[in-house]
Amino acid sequence: MPQKTSVTVLGLGLMGSALAAALLDAGYTTTVWNRSAAKAEPLAAKGAVAAATAAEAIEASPLVIVCLSVYANAEEVLADGALAGRTVVQLTNGTPRQARDLADHVTGHGARYLDGGIMAVPQMIGRPEALILYSGDEDAFAAHRDVLAALGSPRHVGADPGLAPLFDLALLDAMYGMFAGFAHAVALVRSEKVAATVFEPMATAWLTAMMRSFPEQARAVDAGEYGTDVSSVATSQVAFPGLIATSEDQGVDPSLLLPMRDLLDRAVASGHGDDGLARLIPLLARPEPTRPAN
Amino acid sequence: MPQKTSVTVLGLGLMGSALAAALLDAGYTTTVWNRSAAKAEPLAAKGAVAAATAAEAIEASPLVIVCLSVYANAEEVLADGALAGRTVVQLTNGTPRQARDLADHVTGHGARYLDGGIMAVPQMIGRPEALILYSGDEDAFAAHRDVLAALGSPRHVGADPGLAPLFDLALLDAMYGMFAGFAHAVALVRSEKVAATVFEPMATAWLTAMMRSFPEQARAVDAGEYGTDVSSVATSQVAFPGLIATSEDQGVDPSLLLPMRDLLDRAVASGHGDDGLARLIPLLARPEPTRPAN
Ligand SMILES: NC(=O)c1ccc[n+]([C@@H]2O[C@H](COP(=O)([O-])OP(=O)(O)OC[C@H]3O[C@@H](n4cnc5c(N)ncnc54)[C@H](OP(=O)(O)O)[C@@H]3O)[C@@H](O)[C@H]2O)c1
Ligand SMILES: NC(=O)c1ccc[n+]([C@@H]2O[C@H](COP(=O)([O-])OP(=O)(O)OC[C@H]3O[C@@H](n4cnc5c(N)ncnc54)[C@H](OP(=O)(O)O)[C@@H]3O)[C@@H](O)[C@H]2O)c1
Repeated sequence: MPQKTSVTVLGLGLMGSALAAALLDAGYTTTVWNRSAAKAEPLAAKGAVAAATAAEAIEASPLVIVCLSVYANAEEVLADGALAGRTVVQLTNGTPRQARDLADHVTGHGARYLDGGIMAVPQMIGRPEALILYSGDEDAFAAHRDVLAALGSPRHVGADPGLAPLFDLALLDAMYGMFAGFAHAVALVRSEKVAATVFEPMATAWLTAMMRSFPEQARAVDAGEYGTDVSSVATSQVAFPGLIATSEDQGVDPSLLLPMRDLLDRAVASGHGDDGLARLIPLLARPEPTRPAN
Repeated sequence: MPQKTSVTVLGLGLMGSALAAALLDAGYTTTVWNRSAAKAEPLAAKGAVAAATAAEAIEASPLVIVCLSVYANAEEVLADGALAGRTVVQLTNGTPRQARDLADHVTGHGARYLDGGIMAVPQMIGRPEALILYSGDEDAFAAHRDVLAALGSPRHVGADPGLAPLFDLALLDAMYGMFAGFAHAVALVRSEKVAATVFEPMATAWLTAMMRSFPEQARAVDAGEYGTDVSSVATSQVAFPGLIATSEDQGVDPSLLLPMRDLLDRAVASGHGDDGLARLIPLLARPEPTRPAN
């Protein structure tokens, strides 16, 4: 049996420590480094090698995993090391642009680059339900797939290193939308003293059923064909004032609903009333790529 | 075998016609009425009895189903008939208050009352996937359960007639939240020319996984215990500016995210940063039950 790769983890916050622990559990020789050295101690007690400097840690392994609070720190920490011949797997959350810039830097120094988005909390790391998205060098992903599988379920989403952070952010946006809807719905039923636990199974069943419209919405937006015989933008637009008024009546803040109302109004005003709800998606794209941050 | 109840349907719009057709398909003697008589013709061709007036239609059956565009019309149409001894099932969408008022009117005339919320489009009527919520007289629901099952899957949610419309509205709010999140997420991945159909399966899997937090959120809000060791309000609040900035960077309108950002800010400002996301739910409830409609 070939010896298992040795792996370095830079950054031992909540997430980095969970990653290093999962590697140790899976039997990988693991070198760790953290700016404040104390966080390496519990891992050293589990068998990790604690490096004195980031450069030393980078030198120790062909595979270097980075997990710091923000991207700027990742760039700084990697700048210290001799990267040539290594594979850098960068799991710090950032933007697509940051990922591409760091990829350029790393590959410019003769290393291979993967960016990743961890769709899990530290408690889930090491288990298959921890989805981790990767993008960037496909050969590097294939070569290190086994190591990455020790952290969670790895999924390569494309060669462009910006895609994993993009998908990560998009999934978070989708999640917060769903959470906002659930919060508003529960607040509404609670306004009539109905227990959230009574309502929740119905909400879960209903949202699961409504999610079945996603493949058709995706197909519609890809094809640019928005016809529907089921539920139109106009039908939703007509329903919204009632949803908002009832929320007000029940003493529940309707704020979470308002941008969707505005978007539906805008869709109808631009002549898309008869289209399906997928027509809202391209309306969110601005002609100009940037404007001042809100 | 006892003879099947005969049933009346008042209102033959898209939904009322689908209800009447499902009853005919299930073998019920069905009397129909619509303000503009032409809409009764296709149903009469399928075997329905077309009544000349609403009063005549009400007289024809012990069970009277009402499905008009708005509540005001339902009140008007029912006012014409002799209701004593009948069961009125009101499936026009309205507010909890409207349902309770109509229930008072109907029961005051010696009839039993059920209000309902149809969680389906007309195309789904008659199939088990059409969830129909009912509230009001429990004996009437039990007595007519078989007929109601011909329309979809009936579910009684409480004796208060206002509950079915309340749940109906809450489920729609939850759905629009989820759709808003999905629309924003798809717009974001499309800003990098990723096909929606490539992203969609990941979004569906992710949201399905995240929905598993609903029972715990419901439990937390019912108990008023918001502690978490997984994901705090503060963690989400810190993440939001990045989500919004990336959306801007990618040329995607971040409007749909903004009320959630504001709510998270408010939660942290009122000292709930360490609580779980369920803490957002009671923050949506206003101390005063009403304010001018938005
Ligand atoms: N926690 C989660 O649930 C979760 C989930 C998905 C993704 N993530 C992502 O994972 C990354 C790490 O998160 P975390 O929860 O582990 O954060 P954390 O517990 O706050 O840890 C932050 C880490 O960054 C290091 N660091 C900060 N500034 C530094 C600098 N200037 N130079 C060197 N090191 C520096 C810290 O070192 P010190 O110990 O010396 O301060 C620490 O190791 C973030 O990008 C986060 O978005 C986290
Ligand atoms: N369609 C759906 O997907 C759906 C889903 C769930 C719930 N619903 C609810 O079901 C109800 C009916 O919806 P629908 O889709 O069937 O609407 P619709 O096709 O617009 O039909 C409206 C019905 O109301 C009647 N009406 C309107 N004003 C009236 C008045 N003043 N007096 C007597 N009758 C009057 C119309 O009669 P005329 O033909 O004479 O105009 C017609 O029968 C609504 O409350 C809707 O919210 C619909």
